[in-house]
Amino acid sequence: MTVTSALRHLLNSSSVARIVGAHSPLSARLAAEAGFEAIWASGLEISALAGVPDANILSMSQSLQAAADIANAVDVPVLADCDSGFGSVNNVIDMVHRYEKAGIAGVCIEDKQYPKLNSFVEGNQDLAPLHDFVAKIIAATHARQDPDFIIVARIEALISGAGLDEALRRADAYTEAGADALLIHSKKSSPDEIYAFRDRYSGKAPLIVVPTTYNTVTAAELEERGFSAVIYANHAMRGSIVAMQRVLEQIIDDGTTRNVEDQIAPLSRVFELQGMGEMLSKQAHFEKLADAQLAQ
Amino acid sequence: MTVTSALRHLLNSSSVARIVGAHSPLSARLAAEAGFEAIWASGLEISALAGVPDANILSMSQSLQAAADIANAVDVPVLADCDSGFGSVNNVIDMVHRYEKAGIAGVCIEDKQYPKLNSFVEGNQDLAPLHDFVAKIIAATHARQDPDFIIVARIEALISGAGLDEALRRADAYTEAGADALLIHSKKSSPDEIYAFRDRYSGKAPLIVVPTTYNTVTAAELEERGFSAVIYANHAMRGSIVAMQRVLEQIIDDGTTRNVEDQIAPLSRVFELQGMGEMLSKQAHFEKLADAQLAQ
Amino acid sequence: MTVTSALRHLLNSSSVARIVGAHSPLSARLAAEAGFEAIWASGLEISALAGVPDANILSMSQSLQAAADIANAVDVPVLADCDSGFGSVNNVIDMVHRYEKAGIAGVCIEDKQYPKLNSFVEGNQDLAPLHDFVAKIIAATHARQDPDFIIVARIEALISGAGLDEALRRADAYTEAGADALLIHSKKSSPDEIYAFRDRYSGKAPLIVVPTTYNTVTAAELEERGFSAVIYANHAMRGSIVAMQRVLEQIIDDGTTRNVEDQIAPLSRVFELQGMGEMLSKQAHFEKLADAQLAQ
Amino acid sequence: MTVTSALRHLLNSSSVARIVGAHSPLSARLAAEAGFEAIWASGLEISALAGVPDANILSMSQSLQAAADIANAVDVPVLADCDSGFGSVNNVIDMVHRYEKAGIAGVCIEDKQYPKLNSFVEGNQDLAPLHDFVAKIIAATHARQDPDFIIVARIEALISGAGLDEALRRADAYTEAGADALLIHSKKSSPDEIYAFRDRYSGKAPLIVVPTTYNTVTAAELEERGFSAVIYANHAMRGSIVAMQRVLEQIIDDGTTRNVEDQIAPLSRVFELQGMGEMLSKQAHFEKLADAQLAQ
Repeated sequence: MTVTSALRHLLNSSSVARIVGAHSPLSARLAAEAGFEAIWASGLEISALAGVPDANILSMSQSLQAAADIANAVDVPVLADCDSGFGSVNNVIDMVHRYEKAGIAGVCIEDKQYPKLNSFVEGNQDLAPLHDFVAKIIAATHARQDPDFIIVARIEALISGAGLDEALRRADAYTEAGADALLIHSKKSSPDEIYAFRDRYSGKAPLIVVPTTYNTVTAAELEERGFSAVIYANHAMRGSIVAMQRVLEQIIDDGTTRNVEDQIAPLSRVFELQGMGEMLSKQAHFEKLADAQLAQ
Repeated sequence: MTVTSALRHLLNSSSVARIVGAHSPLSARLAAEAGFEAIWASGLEISALAGVPDANILSMSQSLQAAADIANAVDVPVLADCDSGFGSVNNVIDMVHRYEKAGIAGVCIEDKQYPKLNSFVEGNQDLAPLHDFVAKIIAATHARQDPDFIIVARIEALISGAGLDEALRRADAYTEAGADALLIHSKKSSPDEIYAFRDRYSGKAPLIVVPTTYNTVTAAELEERGFSAVIYANHAMRGSIVAMQRVLEQIIDDGTTRNVEDQIAPLSRVFELQGMGEMLSKQAHFEKLADAQLAQ
Repeated sequence: MTVTSALRHLLNSSSVARIVGAHSPLSARLAAEAGFEAIWASGLEISALAGVPDANILSMSQSLQAAADIANAVDVPVLADCDSGFGSVNNVIDMVHRYEKAGIAGVCIEDKQYPKLNSFVEGNQDLAPLHDFVAKIIAATHARQDPDFIIVARIEALISGAGLDEALRRADAYTEAGADALLIHSKKSSPDEIYAFRDRYSGKAPLIVVPTTYNTVTAAELEERGFSAVIYANHAMRGSIVAMQRVLEQIIDDGTTRNVEDQIAPLSRVFELQGMGEMLSKQAHFEKLADAQLAQ
Repeated sequence: MTVTSALRHLLNSSSVARIVGAHSPLSARLAAEAGFEAIWASGLEISALAGVPDANILSMSQSLQAAADIANAVDVPVLADCDSGFGSVNNVIDMVHRYEKAGIAGVCIEDKQYPKLNSFVEGNQDLAPLHDFVAKIIAATHARQDPDFIIVARIEALISGAGLDEALRRADAYTEAGADALLIHSKKSSPDEIYAFRDRYSGKAPLIVVPTTYNTVTAAELEERGFSAVIYANHAMRGSIVAMQRVLEQIIDDGTTRNVEDQIAPLSRVFELQGMGEMLSKQAHFEKLADAQLAQ
């Protein structure tokens, strides 16, 4: 099964797919090990790793490289956070070509303008004109070569303050334009508005949610309500920040690493995660095959 | 003060410089916040982040990009781990040109062959011929434009099993060749062999150690013994692995992120580390200046 | 003299600076050899080399890499074509930081919207609102660290059909905002409209022109009229297309390269342009120094 | 038909495949237009474009990016010049994974050591130990996922002065190791030694030649002799150097571009080669589809 059909299957099955944010091959491998069914190549995580604001300061090609590196490192499918599509319809077409060729299973584009601003930040959260974003969805679905490559339309109407009716109007338009799934985003502390959206949306596209702020909902509850996937968008990275700060401060305080040893992975674990043993055994194997051939 | 003269000053002062490994702008900012005086752009960390073995699988240009991104993100100087110099004398010359132009304060090259293997892994740890490495050090010191750009020669004789006499022979040769500092590496669980090296080395080059395995030594003790810098080479990343794994497993187990909230940084902290507030206030400031100009 | 002050001097001297488009280190070296005083890292050339339309399909980071590679390869200053600044004020600030760090002498941004379209193509050539572009110029001038780093404001009013009065209104606003020079663009087959602009512009900013379509004007004539620089934006690349097509077709036709030998540079010339001899002599030199040290 | 099976077919058919060197998407498109059946992503051309010696100064990832960009731009298969494989067996395995994922049809590795030096330059042309290179060929053939991905073994015995017997010994070993084709390289001004090789090689691997120095041979003659492919490795780039130099010097001499207009491609041709028209018509098409959907 290809990664694109795997992601398509996850979104269209009756159980809720658990997708988790990653920012690197390393974090993606940890996510796959933990049992997540797919990876979200998170714009927030990748820009934070790079030390730049989540506001299209990172370019398309940098975002692509990060997502491609993740996809190269794991077997589970990768859904790439592509912000508002890096520009116009023309940028979306180019983006789909490149992301698909890079072995990524699908892209998610949101109906804000370029450059977009992180949805949880106060500032310009204006929606793109409906027509412009419908054209992008149509263009994206025509640009893919593999019909299983996933195009997710992310609706920011609830983020921008445009309201539920506008969110539903856009959901219908994006569904008709051919989106394979809808991501309905919310920054409320309760899931009420996404539940209301779920109840009133009558289209057939699978629905994805990102419960960053309404963090008490469970995957089981979302499944019961009929959602298709949940994205835990940035938690591993946020955990890594706390851990790195603690380790760094303790080393400075103590003048030694002695007291952080129980909080850090052994070197053998680092080697395992980077595939050191596998590399060395392949090397030995191929050198033996060469010995055998030349000994004849 | 430039970053190169800052690093030179750190290495030549009487107190031990505390240098810590980083793999990204994000982790480098945390390191600078914690109070480390310089950053080690660690080959192990950067390759682990990329999901590939620490064995020159990552190319020179990828290693450079990672180190340059780190240098762009912090004010403290960055010393880049450049393995064995990515090839021959010619590669070393090109490498020095590129690392120096990228705003990195110095490079460290080790006297093993290309491709090198991580020093803590069983496998080929053969030393490069003395002549070849002396030529690389000479070439590196001639290739820099800024005389303060730092060239560290890393001695792997204790790692390779060649012994203390060979380590000292090489130390003298690299000192004479113009190395600005020597990194004497060891994988013993006690600092005895690096202390013996310290006692017998009579040259003037500052000495750097990496107490990954002899982790009970303190910075104070190293300072007293006359070492110039200590590199805690990979601890923050190893802390991040433990934390990410724990967060990821708990989300899978719980079906919600509710119970990881106290282990992860709030979004506001992520925004702070990526400079979101600074970006938005600059934007507002320049737009006000434009308003003012056009209102005249 | 730094490249930034060299470019500043070229723009502010009484003679017209001759600047020529390049798309690669190779073509930039040929341009410097021929005697051009500065290089234009041309968006059209660089995107054409990459096989993508000149419409911001190439990302900021790809454009930066191309310009940085050029700047690394020549001693003459490089002025980078930065389209409309790759987005908003925030993108412009980030862009200035990165281009300046990369050793580029200056950037040129134009007052169209993102994504921009090549000025000689029929399509959306709408101007950006005056306020937005003034804010970008102000932001760019504040973002540079080196006060000599050049910010060129390119006026597209004559391209977009907005007319001479609008071009002059914008020229005054950009001058007041701090632009170091103005590039007044035209796609007419005669220089009349840029001469009219020159006559009516009373500000102090140096004026740059790009006589792609009004190709009968001479540098001497432009100098007499009071222009500060002329950019021959894409001619070397266009010459290379004709030559490559001819060589390729002849090889196919003939089934041998025998008959193209007099149209192609000898291998020794390729080696010279890529610095092969210089590399080999440095290598020999440093190896001799190592011999000498170790023979003591 | 995939690009890998297309290249396999070309190498195994009875007619000689005409392959030509390229350094960019632009030059590759010109090559495909002219009728070449495949593209050689030439190390010499790509390093010359980048302004660095052809001596593994360009890294694996830079070489990969250049070849991938070429492969993205044309429909004909791309065979990538991968020097000596960028290091050890481990580097070769990683290289095959990355080149295959990038849509490249095959790789060619040569039996010299890392870093390699261009074969036409006086200097270190030492062969790699037979065992080491056999191990690389075995590793490469095992590393590919698509069995049609091509592994070419390039024999440098005639370049290094090791002679015909050594070339044949290696040809047999590489054939047995699984190479899909052999490239027998020569720097003689006559084809005699490659004809002698052809006569004495009794293995089944298709044979490829690069008649840079023995440029009087014809494709027809090579086909008759039983060669499978001919690579014209760097002629288009060498033609571009002559043309760019001539255009640049004439502009400097004349102070105008008036007199070079008949030597350069019109802008419309540049736009065509970069796909400008295709982009604009797709944009118009998808915007019309959006209009139609929203007008319902």
